[in-house]
Amino acid sequence: MNALTAETYAAHVTIAEGVVAAVAGAQESVPVRDARAWDVLDGSGYFAVPALVDAHLHIESSMVLPPAFAAAVVPRGILTVIADPHEIANVMGLHGIRLMAEAARGLPLDVFLQVPSCVPATDLETSGAEIGPEEIRELLGWEEILALGEVMDFNAVLTGQGRAAEVLAAAVEHGAIVEGHAPNLTGGDLAAYIAAGVTSDHTFVTPELAEERLRAGMTLQLQLKTLAPETIRRASALAKSLNLCLVTDDVMPDDLVRTGHLDHVLRTAIRMGMDPIEAIRAVTIAPAMRFGLTDRGAIAPGRWAHIVLTKSLEDFRADYVFHAGRLVAKDGELVVPLPKYEPPEEARSTVRIPPPATDRFRLPARGRSVTARIIQMRRESTYTEARTERLPVKDGAIDWESSNLCLAAVFERHGRAGTVGYGLVRGALRDGAVAMTWAHDSHNLLVLGRSPADMAQAARWVVETGGGMAAVRGGELLGSVRLPIAGIVSERSVPEVAEELGTFRRALTTLGFTHTSPIMALGVLTLPVSPELKLTDLGLVDVTRGVIVPLIMEG
Amino acid sequence: MNALTAETYAAHVTIAEGVVAAVAGAQESVPVRDARAWDVLDGSGYFAVPALVDAHLHIESSMVLPPAFAAAVVPRGILTVIADPHEIANVMGLHGIRLMAEAARGLPLDVFLQVPSCVPATDLETSGAEIGPEEIRELLGWEEILALGEVMDFNAVLTGQGRAAEVLAAAVEHGAIVEGHAPNLTGGDLAAYIAAGVTSDHTFVTPELAEERLRAGMTLQLQLKTLAPETIRRASALAKSLNLCLVTDDVMPDDLVRTGHLDHVLRTAIRMGMDPIEAIRAVTIAPAMRFGLTDRGAIAPGRWAHIVLTKSLEDFRADYVFHAGRLVAKDGELVVPLPKYEPPEEARSTVRIPPPATDRFRLPARGRSVTARIIQMRRESTYTEARTERLPVKDGAIDWESSNLCLAAVFERHGRAGTVGYGLVRGALRDGAVAMTWAHDSHNLLVLGRSPADMAQAARWVVETGGGMAAVRGGELLGSVRLPIAGIVSERSVPEVAEELGTFRRALTTLGFTHTSPIMALGVLTLPVSPELKLTDLGLVDVTRGVIVPLIMEG
Repeated sequence: MNALTAETYAAHVTIAEGVVAAVAGAQESVPVRDARAWDVLDGSGYFAVPALVDAHLHIESSMVLPPAFAAAVVPRGILTVIADPHEIANVMGLHGIRLMAEAARGLPLDVFLQVPSCVPATDLETSGAEIGPEEIRELLGWEEILALGEVMDFNAVLTGQGRAAEVLAAAVEHGAIVEGHAPNLTGGDLAAYIAAGVTSDHTFVTPELAEERLRAGMTLQLQLKTLAPETIRRASALAKSLNLCLVTDDVMPDDLVRTGHLDHVLRTAIRMGMDPIEAIRAVTIAPAMRFGLTDRGAIAPGRWAHIVLTKSLEDFRADYVFHAGRLVAKDGELVVPLPKYEPPEEARSTVRIPPPATDRFRLPARGRSVTARIIQMRRESTYTEARTERLPVKDGAIDWESSNLCLAAVFERHGRAGTVGYGLVRGALRDGAVAMTWAHDSHNLLVLGRSPADMAQAARWVVETGGGMAAVRGGELLGSVRLPIAGIVSERSVPEVAEELGTFRRALTTLGFTHTSPIMALGVLTLPVSPELKLTDLGLVDVTRGVIVPLIMEG
Repeated sequence: MNALTAETYAAHVTIAEGVVAAVAGAQESVPVRDARAWDVLDGSGYFAVPALVDAHLHIESSMVLPPAFAAAVVPRGILTVIADPHEIANVMGLHGIRLMAEAARGLPLDVFLQVPSCVPATDLETSGAEIGPEEIRELLGWEEILALGEVMDFNAVLTGQGRAAEVLAAAVEHGAIVEGHAPNLTGGDLAAYIAAGVTSDHTFVTPELAEERLRAGMTLQLQLKTLAPETIRRASALAKSLNLCLVTDDVMPDDLVRTGHLDHVLRTAIRMGMDPIEAIRAVTIAPAMRFGLTDRGAIAPGRWAHIVLTKSLEDFRADYVFHAGRLVAKDGELVVPLPKYEPPEEARSTVRIPPPATDRFRLPARGRSVTARIIQMRRESTYTEARTERLPVKDGAIDWESSNLCLAAVFERHGRAGTVGYGLVRGALRDGAVAMTWAHDSHNLLVLGRSPADMAQAARWVVETGGGMAAVRGGELLGSVRLPIAGIVSERSVPEVAEELGTFRRALTTLGFTHTSPIMALGVLTLPVSPELKLTDLGLVDVTRGVIVPLIMEG
């Protein structure tokens, strides 16, 4: 399949030194100078498709290091990723970004990076590190770095105030490609965001918002949750300038094992009506050109021989995967060894607090009752609602246990501020407790539950493990995920982490938490840029107003 | 017209500080932050089209300096050119390139440059300067430089030997875009040329060669002589990746005045059946993206407000031309003053030889007759044929005058070698003589004629003028063009030079030279990369073999 011309035709592909030397019609001889034929593969019955390029993702969302990530995605035909190491940067700063770059060396997966632009996302939380204009300038000089990662703080961009505005200005001055994050932004605000230098968006869009973005010259990156027949139809009709990509953003390890990665997004788009060739172009030549990667994205002379053989374009399966001309996977199995990577010791000691004792899970209050802010969780969205409730006070503390509420506490765990924020949550667990250091974006220690004893025990498990997720009830560990690298990533394989995540998922069900995306719903309870009321180590965040608000509204 | 999505729709365009701030539907308000409305133009009845971008041209072919060039093309809607200053570089080296960059400052025409890759084209001639890998590395660092200019010596590329191969390697190492020149190259040779890093071609192509180039990932640049309905049809069908451009390459001043520039190529392509919107994309967004110029090529937020208003897309005419939001031309007339440019004194003294005396136009020979190589000119092509003829010898010299041949002499004029090469030409003038320093690619002094006295006089006029073209018969100057800057360019306006060129053209007719492109046919008689037998200051060049051959084959 020719991704450049959107054609299919029979052809010979000649590869030399890892690069496509020539593509000749099936009837022609292939007179390539100085090339000896080493090995010939008869690809009859297969389409040769350029290996897939993922233009926007966070490897940390799959909770593994780059080698394990490669082991999971290379057999699916994904050989290039442009990853934003936003999560690990929030914990470890530049050291985290360097870790990701070093861990990716020598893999049959080409890992390019974006500089995380919003570390931390806001000043309403305490992250493990800050990345400012100075660091941005340094990072943009690294050879692995292709772009400035998603600029989430669009208010800063529009007003020209704040860290994100400074970071963006530094990147634009450097001539960098700048990735966006513009949920629902439209009209003059969207135009101003683009004019400031941000030229892509991967957030959820309606067909109308998709059209507006393509007309304005943005690269539109559709992820799984955005895929819908009408959006695909409208976007495909306007994508005349290689500015439509399919991307993954966040893929959890168990989803990766069960359904796949970018290959799954590709199949889904086609199933929803996208032309198969156009869909493949949206995961090959389009993302390659977005980042100026003229050395890939098509099977053409001078480009890397990153090639997938598939029996069907409509139902893409990576039957053979070649990285730089070398067979690296076949029938879904890796056929080459991957280099080992040993993370530095500092990456294993990022949970820098003692386990919180049971008495930390108590909300002192005076009088007989108080009016308190409540985080109301929703069943099908990671957004929350801000509510208020009148709650009784017992023994000098809010009696949340008898009100069927969960107590939530976020402990700053990077060894910086020692801060802790408290909130009350309705619609989460009915029983037991969970603790997790995988808690966007600062990845502090979130502890949430119905019982102070269980909360303390879940927290202790996570702290002593060096990070991860734990679910406890009545003193029993029901499920857990060990994530000792930066407190968010495992050293093991995707299937192993998926297995552990399964225990944690089942435990959440046992504890009475039903949600379409339960882990993410808990993991972004701490995200102060996601509506409506969230909790960080600095306290409750009114996201709409962008301020910290007190838990108790009146005495 | 939206060049990104290939749509037309009614819209408001808001411009602030020279940049498009927003494009809103005709019914919507335009709530751009911090923008005050300064001036409103009602464009009803017009299409707003991005200003044209010429991806491949030599400004020197129009025989003027950048300010005069801008005065000619800006009113035609061309506001960006990516020019290869190949001609002036062959005379003045880096000084010539710097002159072009400096002369272009402050114009309402954005002039980007390519580094000429083949200065000189071969070692079979003496140019005024050489540009090697060292100079290439320096030049690629200049902010005006966007690419390495057309790599003409494809044999050097394919064998990896020679200056062009070294220059290409330096450019590829630098990550530069590399422009090609691959006449009739096909199959494995074309693939190898592309794999070496050359990714465009603007030479004449058949429909089949066009298809091969697009499939192989080249940017195909169609110039006037290449335009044909079937080529357009086939190329348009495959140009799915913004890799089809329309370009001018060489436009002579009188053609520019009479028919136009890139606007004429655009109209011609549409007349031959190209979809008007696709044709406009081939002169706007496609060339802009070819060179990574994300700040233009479309009317979209954040891009320069380089906009043309035209009443018709089918018959494109630049009724209003805005450069960075400022009206610079209207109804074909410039409406702003252009900055003056004074070339450095060294640019005016590049003809560094005394006028050759009459006795230099003599071919000594022994015996009674000789067999000599003859350059046979053709009527409709600038290619020549190599012939041999038996010629009488009289008074110790070949008697070419009685054989209806022209004598041609090429004098090295840069003050370097003092060399002179001689040839005999059939099918050129019947009478008189011409002299010209506009003689590709080294721009030495070509003198050609039927009479030694006329040849000496024509040569004297050109030498004393500091360069140009002169036609003389019987001691009378029939026509002439003054090109005192580097011997190839005038300081005057395009219409003025066109006028002079008209006198020279008419003189050629008077002297009996009939050709479809007479000036170019003479000007490339000295080009040692254009088949079949050519003449340089080092002698006759057998172009096919790439060697100097003697005029007299046997005594």
